[in-house]
Amino acid sequence: MAKKKRSKNDLAAKISEKLRVTEGFELSKLATDATPGFKGKKADAEKVMADQRAEIDDLQERLYANGRDGDGPSILLVVQGMDTSGKGGIMRHVVGSVDPQGISLHAFKAPTAEEKRRPFLWRIRQQLPKPGMIGVFDRSHYEDVLIVRVHNLVPPTTWRRRYGQINAFEQSVTDAGTHVVKVMLHISSDEQRARLSERLARPDKYWKYNPGDVTEREFWDGYLEAYQAVLDRTSTDEAPWYVVPADRKWYARLAVQQILLNELRSLQLDWPPADFDVKAEQKRVAAT
Amino acid sequence: MAKKKRSKNDLAAKISEKLRVTEGFELSKLATDATPGFKGKKADAEKVMADQRAEIDDLQERLYANGRDGDGPSILLVVQGMDTSGKGGIMRHVVGSVDPQGISLHAFKAPTAEEKRRPFLWRIRQQLPKPGMIGVFDRSHYEDVLIVRVHNLVPPTTWRRRYGQINAFEQSVTDAGTHVVKVMLHISSDEQRARLSERLARPDKYWKYNPGDVTEREFWDGYLEAYQAVLDRTSTDEAPWYVVPADRKWYARLAVQQILLNELRSLQLDWPPADFDVKAEQKRVAAT
Repeated sequence: MAKKKRSKNDLAAKISEKLRVTEGFELSKLATDATPGFKGKKADAEKVMADQRAEIDDLQERLYANGRDGDGPSILLVVQGMDTSGKGGIMRHVVGSVDPQGISLHAFKAPTAEEKRRPFLWRIRQQLPKPGMIGVFDRSHYEDVLIVRVHNLVPPTTWRRRYGQINAFEQSVTDAGTHVVKVMLHISSDEQRARLSERLARPDKYWKYNPGDVTEREFWDGYLEAYQAVLDRTSTDEAPWYVVPADRKWYARLAVQQILLNELRSLQLDWPPADFDVKAEQKRVAAT
Repeated sequence: MAKKKRSKNDLAAKISEKLRVTEGFELSKLATDATPGFKGKKADAEKVMADQRAEIDDLQERLYANGRDGDGPSILLVVQGMDTSGKGGIMRHVVGSVDPQGISLHAFKAPTAEEKRRPFLWRIRQQLPKPGMIGVFDRSHYEDVLIVRVHNLVPPTTWRRRYGQINAFEQSVTDAGTHVVKVMLHISSDEQRARLSERLARPDKYWKYNPGDVTEREFWDGYLEAYQAVLDRTSTDEAPWYVVPADRKWYARLAVQQILLNELRSLQLDWPPADFDVKAEQKRVAAT
């Protein structure tokens, strides 16, 4: 089932290729309301996503099955983006469509006092996916070169060293069998204003609103600069970044599903063979 | 939205009431292929489940929103059952339909060497849901009075004390704001044989097959006795057991969704009020 769909013209490969960060990529030139690689509308995207679910289920279960003996591959999907860029929607609609038994989701908040006393990658290491799992990070170690850089939470000599430390860390993670894909959801400043306004217009959305998010808008350009540095310095062949235009939520969800599906397909996993005598076991079961 | 559906005739309340363990309940008298409280067939059940999703989403999000300040209620759904009783299907089809950001799922395997050196509830405590979350246990501390009792893994004086220890523990959990619901998926021995045979007939299911599961079939009556003791001694008003006939997978899924929905409705949660000045924030956002 996995094999017949792996053509070069498929949507998952096409969108992944278009969004993957390559040398010379400039964040400031990306249209945040574009839909690269997809000509349809929202309803078309939703149909594509629904139609892909059986294949994703199949591939995810193969991944999980291969992890049962404790040494198969795993996937780590890192999701970053400004406030209101739609990370929660990705968790709900893309990650949420996968069997929860195969998902290890962690949302990184501002570090606790204990976490601050440790090296910045310490809390990240605790949450790495085990063999067979799809790990999902809602924010990540990249905050340590984003908000930390924008607000000078550590001296520049410290955050400057972190790009190399992150690359070395991710190299060790991929060496251990974890396939790392990193997604940045990219919205415009105008779109963020509209989304914050919407939260303030609906009492069922108040809980998502944080006055600090407005204060952060003053640092918009600083964040763009910090994201550009992340993309320039940490998008590697083995742990690439994908920048997803995210003003249209439906496109962002479609795109992240394509990136995940493309990665799952690339594993080309078969079902693990029986480690017992099938005929003998059939007889044993029948005899009980 | 939550309030108008809370009538005494609704399906969630009806099925929950029928499956809830009350004094004198006898496991051996339950028809494992019955569908208590539901007259429809598989397709009807699937439609009911799909139709309830929007309400579950709404109630789960209210729960999550109320947990944001660190002291709202939470839910703990404990799922137990013999091998092949369909625990994985519940995780995939019922738990999997809920926003993964609000789910904290943990599958308890045979205890590790470190876990064995600790009191049996130690590893359970680590996995209790935080405020706002729906915790789900795939197996649980009940294994410590099920497999442990059946195979005499500890002296009888030890496992006998555990019923009281479990009740005291669950009391402390509910006191802390966690609503505990416990589900036993109950299949017949014949149904288990059929499901084991099916795993042996399909190469994509071999990985789920464990020769030890057949060996365990010899202890079927011992497990029934151990489950009966669990139901007799640990089904309390605050942490009740529900026994779900599970020979029909579609009914088991429907039933567990009703039990979860019934519990979510019972919380009667409103959206948390704004802890900021809405008008002032609207002006701030518009000015950026």
